[in-house]
Amino acid sequence: MIPSLAYGVFSRPGERPRVGAAAGDHIADLSTLPLEHAADFAEPSLNAFLARGRQAWDDTHAEIDDLLTRTRPTLIPAAQVSMHLPFEVADYVDFYSSEHHATNVGRIFRPDGEALSPNWRHLPIGYHGRAGTVVVSGTPIRRPHGQLGPGEFGPSQRLDIEAEVGFVVGTPAPEGRVATADFAEHVFGVVLVNDWSARDIQRWETVPLGPFLGKSFATSISPWVVPLAALEHLRVAPPPADPPLLPYLSGSEPWGLDLELTVRLNGTVISRPPFRHMYWTAAQQLAHLTVNGASLRTGDLFASGTVSGPEPDQLGCLLELTWNGEHPLTLDDGTQRAFLADGDEVVISAAELGEVSGRIVG
Amino acid sequence: MIPSLAYGVFSRPGERPRVGAAAGDHIADLSTLPLEHAADFAEPSLNAFLARGRQAWDDTHAEIDDLLTRTRPTLIPAAQVSMHLPFEVADYVDFYSSEHHATNVGRIFRPDGEALSPNWRHLPIGYHGRAGTVVVSGTPIRRPHGQLGPGEFGPSQRLDIEAEVGFVVGTPAPEGRVATADFAEHVFGVVLVNDWSARDIQRWETVPLGPFLGKSFATSISPWVVPLAALEHLRVAPPPADPPLLPYLSGSEPWGLDLELTVRLNGTVISRPPFRHMYWTAAQQLAHLTVNGASLRTGDLFASGTVSGPEPDQLGCLLELTWNGEHPLTLDDGTQRAFLADGDEVVISAAELGEVSGRIVG
Repeated sequence: MIPSLAYGVFSRPGERPRVGAAAGDHIADLSTLPLEHAADFAEPSLNAFLARGRQAWDDTHAEIDDLLTRTRPTLIPAAQVSMHLPFEVADYVDFYSSEHHATNVGRIFRPDGEALSPNWRHLPIGYHGRAGTVVVSGTPIRRPHGQLGPGEFGPSQRLDIEAEVGFVVGTPAPEGRVATADFAEHVFGVVLVNDWSARDIQRWETVPLGPFLGKSFATSISPWVVPLAALEHLRVAPPPADPPLLPYLSGSEPWGLDLELTVRLNGTVISRPPFRHMYWTAAQQLAHLTVNGASLRTGDLFASGTVSGPEPDQLGCLLELTWNGEHPLTLDDGTQRAFLADGDEVVISAAELGEVSGRIVG
Repeated sequence: MIPSLAYGVFSRPGERPRVGAAAGDHIADLSTLPLEHAADFAEPSLNAFLARGRQAWDDTHAEIDDLLTRTRPTLIPAAQVSMHLPFEVADYVDFYSSEHHATNVGRIFRPDGEALSPNWRHLPIGYHGRAGTVVVSGTPIRRPHGQLGPGEFGPSQRLDIEAEVGFVVGTPAPEGRVATADFAEHVFGVVLVNDWSARDIQRWETVPLGPFLGKSFATSISPWVVPLAALEHLRVAPPPADPPLLPYLSGSEPWGLDLELTVRLNGTVISRPPFRHMYWTAAQQLAHLTVNGASLRTGDLFASGTVSGPEPDQLGCLLELTWNGEHPLTLDDGTQRAFLADGDEVVISAAELGEVSGRIVG
């Protein structure tokens, strides 16, 4: 499944990876089209094009649209190509911006305490992940080994997914402090993200400094980066903020997105998380991420955190869907899953974004 | 202060940055010497040389030693050059490996609880930091603004340092799982690190996912990377482990290092943290960091965490030295400091590693 307007890095066997545009079930080889920035598209990543900024992105979209409709260039069937990681990831930040997800996780792990930490409604909670282990959709995911408790070591027994939406930075901000109103000047586009999580490793390591090896073994992203411009019609206001937001998190340009994700495990649809309920938008996340002066680089990736909606069939990870393994899911083949088994394949998709898949290898 | 054998990236005004070797108070321009890998040294970072691996590193050291003593090439006075970030940082991980530091922080923030979290003696606690804000010594440090509590926003009032030792990865490990015995195959050398920390921002944000904006605004490193080979004589066994270690954290080759750091604030020596007391060694940190299969890339940087010794004048941050600001330090000029003031300059040095400095800009 390929989105209708998107950029990715592809190759046919024996060829160099280069940038293409999705065109139905075909790919336009942008490095061969008479585009102003054609040289950028001969690179094995989108980074050169990402660095050009909003005006060049918009102009190039218009050029491509025009060429595809007017000159009908030869297209390559998508089935003939391999897709590669679409951009070199600079820093990777993962947020925690679904109130439903954060509340469920709080209830599962702290049944006697407050579900949300006191800061949760004041700022978009996030942390840095491992940029070097972001991989493209289809890359096999090796089950991580690690410490599961005091003196206990072995393969994770609680391997999970997190269905997320990721945002790809194009224009750098050397001094940080990106206003919510400038979001679309810096963010080029959107990918689907599966933030694979080993819940047993994560739980034992996470206090006091947060997630580390429970997450750092792999994060999968979709091969196609969909420009913000292609999602303009999906923009919605996020849920009302309570308490009121500090000025740097406010803004008249809402960047909620009415995307619906679908999560399939071995072909069985196990969830349809709606993105429009996210408490914090990507524009607020970016403003927060840089408010301390932290610089932004081309290739920075930040993800929403697990997308969970209010309904039981809208939860974005197995931890929630099975309530920490207490209520296993039954798949269409009759087998049950509390967490992922070796050989399992997870596919997260959205009509506008394509899909991100990964299969567990023992 | 320049270490006696080290690599850095330098330029004179108007020149391209390139790789040099420290030679007393002079620099040898390695790009102009008849070395096997001279082309690596015409690059503006050490990464090409770092990727060559242990044999090439050792052979090159021998070549340089020989050339400097035998052919007496023209050297450049260090005072004439600017130093640049010595390598492109891939992923940056910060550990928390001083038992004295972790215990003090626990006592300050959780006076009624256990000082150390239950996992602390079982694994080296760490988290990912922001690679894009690692800067070279001498870069001005802008005081970060951020949320200081519910509805409260402004410049950090509790700006602090963390005196650390950092380890620079050369040889990648695509599959992770680096054994402690293979530490020196992957790690090229050592830098000093100042992990600037805004304690008020950090405290409000840190539960549940760990440090984020309280750290991500800047991390300074020394300009000279000192090869492991130059520190061989400082290797010591770390303190005995209790409880016993899991096999992947054990190893017959101890990588404790008997370094002494000196921390100066506006010229006043405020601490002399000894590195030999660190509970977890860099070899154990690397084994832990990769045990889940996380890949290692050339340019990965991982730091020790704040180096604090057992004595009151051996603590590596102001949080500990002033006990959360309750007991301000008196500097040689008679002024007092609980945390850093605008204009303050902090210099962390070690005889074998040179120094890392930074001045606070308001």
